[in-house]
Amino acid sequence: MIRLTRCYRISASHRLHTPSLPESENQRVYGKCNNPFGHGHNYIVEVSVKGPVEKATGRVVNLARLDEFVREMIIDRFDHRDLNRDVAEFAGVPPTSENLATVIQNRLRSAWSTAFEGSTATLDRVRIRETRNNIIEVNGNQ
Amino acid sequence: MIRLTRCYRISASHRLHTPSLPESENQRVYGKCNNPFGHGHNYIVEVSVKGPVEKATGRVVNLARLDEFVREMIIDRFDHRDLNRDVAEFAGVPPTSENLATVIQNRLRSAWSTAFEGSTATLDRVRIRETRNNIIEVNGNQ
Amino acid sequence: MIRLTRCYRISASHRLHTPSLPESENQRVYGKCNNPFGHGHNYIVEVSVKGPVEKATGRVVNLARLDEFVREMIIDRFDHRDLNRDVAEFAGVPPTSENLATVIQNRLRSAWSTAFEGSTATLDRVRIRETRNNIIEVNGNQ
Amino acid sequence: MIRLTRCYRISASHRLHTPSLPESENQRVYGKCNNPFGHGHNYIVEVSVKGPVEKATGRVVNLARLDEFVREMIIDRFDHRDLNRDVAEFAGVPPTSENLATVIQNRLRSAWSTAFEGSTATLDRVRIRETRNNIIEVNGNQ
Amino acid sequence: MIRLTRCYRISASHRLHTPSLPESENQRVYGKCNNPFGHGHNYIVEVSVKGPVEKATGRVVNLARLDEFVREMIIDRFDHRDLNRDVAEFAGVPPTSENLATVIQNRLRSAWSTAFEGSTATLDRVRIRETRNNIIEVNGNQ
Amino acid sequence: MIRLTRCYRISASHRLHTPSLPESENQRVYGKCNNPFGHGHNYIVEVSVKGPVEKATGRVVNLARLDEFVREMIIDRFDHRDLNRDVAEFAGVPPTSENLATVIQNRLRSAWSTAFEGSTATLDRVRIRETRNNIIEVNGNQ
Repeated sequence: MIRLTRCYRISASHRLHTPSLPESENQRVYGKCNNPFGHGHNYIVEVSVKGPVEKATGRVVNLARLDEFVREMIIDRFDHRDLNRDVAEFAGVPPTSENLATVIQNRLRSAWSTAFEGSTATLDRVRIRETRNNIIEVNGNQ
Repeated sequence: MIRLTRCYRISASHRLHTPSLPESENQRVYGKCNNPFGHGHNYIVEVSVKGPVEKATGRVVNLARLDEFVREMIIDRFDHRDLNRDVAEFAGVPPTSENLATVIQNRLRSAWSTAFEGSTATLDRVRIRETRNNIIEVNGNQ
Repeated sequence: MIRLTRCYRISASHRLHTPSLPESENQRVYGKCNNPFGHGHNYIVEVSVKGPVEKATGRVVNLARLDEFVREMIIDRFDHRDLNRDVAEFAGVPPTSENLATVIQNRLRSAWSTAFEGSTATLDRVRIRETRNNIIEVNGNQ
Repeated sequence: MIRLTRCYRISASHRLHTPSLPESENQRVYGKCNNPFGHGHNYIVEVSVKGPVEKATGRVVNLARLDEFVREMIIDRFDHRDLNRDVAEFAGVPPTSENLATVIQNRLRSAWSTAFEGSTATLDRVRIRETRNNIIEVNGNQ
Repeated sequence: MIRLTRCYRISASHRLHTPSLPESENQRVYGKCNNPFGHGHNYIVEVSVKGPVEKATGRVVNLARLDEFVREMIIDRFDHRDLNRDVAEFAGVPPTSENLATVIQNRLRSAWSTAFEGSTATLDRVRIRETRNNIIEVNGNQ
Repeated sequence: MIRLTRCYRISASHRLHTPSLPESENQRVYGKCNNPFGHGHNYIVEVSVKGPVEKATGRVVNLARLDEFVREMIIDRFDHRDLNRDVAEFAGVPPTSENLATVIQNRLRSAWSTAFEGSTATLDRVRIRETRNNIIEVNGNQ
């Protein structure tokens, strides 16, 4: 079994704010990430795939198909966007890195078996690097 | 003469849009950077200082003073902000990296002689790394 | 379950030397790291936390609390210090990366339950990057 | 138990091509990596070792011995080489990153017990970074 | 005046060999870079442009036009290629980083004025990062 | 004319302290870098050389000769050392990055013409990266 990881990049803005909590609590939990007009990041999105190596091709997965899949499902919809306003799952939900990683792996997982029908590769992990100091991982098989 | 460069980081959002141009031209010039709700970046701001080394201390400039100066003038006002709405110079002006570097060096230059009175160090250059592939430099002495 | 990793940085000096071994053996085991006056590194300390995402906040752990905890327990005591002389655990014990990672995770683990009372997050892993080519990991739950 | 990872670097050329498949299929599977005269990469090879820390030395493994072992078994034979023509395992086998990681861990694993006789350290993982966006891992204990 | 730098990436193979010198001299000058079957690198190509900022757009140069220009002139012809056999200028000429930087800036410079007619931006510098330790710069205006 | 830059690495310890200044002033100027037992860094030393490209070899300078020169003059004497106690120029002189860059370029410059007799390459610049945020440059030709 081999694990292959591909890195993608999205530049997006967001504001961390939870409508169900009072202002003071929003400030305590999110600090400057709660600033009213939002801010942004260059996110690195790492998608990991696991499976056996196909003997004829020496590949775990067809890379062109994987890139196309992630581009359609994630990059085209999150890159150069505002997460709060452009991504449906973040209506009333704070776009923390934890939630962003979960949303991305949910989208990839739900369409995986159709997109990779006939392939032995499975989605293994989604990792988000929000800054060079803040990294979030979620298991793609859960 | 020695050149010392300090790197600072700001996470900010912006939207590239010029009111004086029609929509189609905005789209042509800025591409996806023109998306309506904006996006964001982890900017690296490099501030370079030039001068002789003070013999007693072995320093071109007092680093604590430089850090405090950049924090007060730039970081506290740009970091975790929306450039279009939180920075006065970008009212009606597109916050491209070129304009961002110019605004930052203008702010630093205008306050430099007061903040560094008695110092032989001069502001030499401001460099912005918007992404790992897009870098802008402006001469701080102009 | 989500894993969140935060990166911290410490610049420290050390000398690898074991009093219980003869000089020639110290030289064989540690090479130039055994040089008499010591040397130093810019260490990256990665602290990983594991837990469910709190629904209201979208967070695995309060980041301000985590940063404060690591600052008090580790950064303030190891950064810009000499590991051999400034850190009690290294009296007579060689400050290899293996021992450094173990000392850091022991300090964090012993105070974790008090500092994070009421939190569902647990300490998952401590990783030390001594140079860009030398990386050590220790499981924080052991 | 501690995991230690050492990073090594090899600059090598390769061409992805499978003799058993028709030209059009080679093009579909490998894209521009199938270009007739080949291309190349700066590979990072990460070798991970797992084991207890030896109390006297504070080490999981003797680093000089590990470096010498990887240099003899891998670096001297793969670095500044053409993988297709200079490495026996790639005669008729496409040198994908998946196959490269497998070949490297097979070579290291087969000679490990002799080279590290008397050591409690085991080979844990081989990870290849082909580009900054393409990463392959194979378990060294399998 | 502002300097804008864009980074591009090419993965290519090459062999350093000069037909006019004897084998022993080729070995002395190029070392392992002279290995008979060649090797390869992930090159970073930095293209720097200099000029005033256009007031309406806040841009030194139209980035889409610059990217398209470099893609057509360089990336499509050098990426995933063998420099010795796929690039005309290296017939009988060793593809050192010095020569590669010169060839790239010659190609860009010769077509610049046509491609950027009406633009005030000039080609300022070409920089090649062959490995993380080997960097070559050539002035694009010479 | 071409500029070639080679990067070298040294891991060293130092303490910033000036005997001619009182304790309080040492503390004010150097902050935590004044801690009594010292600390350390992974320094990157960039040595830049300028010259025409030799037509036969395609090289600005013989890289093996340059590496050997820097290794003998700098790496063997600074790496895995304590700058204050192992480097003669820092007896009573604070080993700031400014002074370190000056000492390195002085050593290289003074021996350059002998080591590179017959070569058209000149020493152009020495740059020190003390941390990822602190960079010092000194002109090698002064």
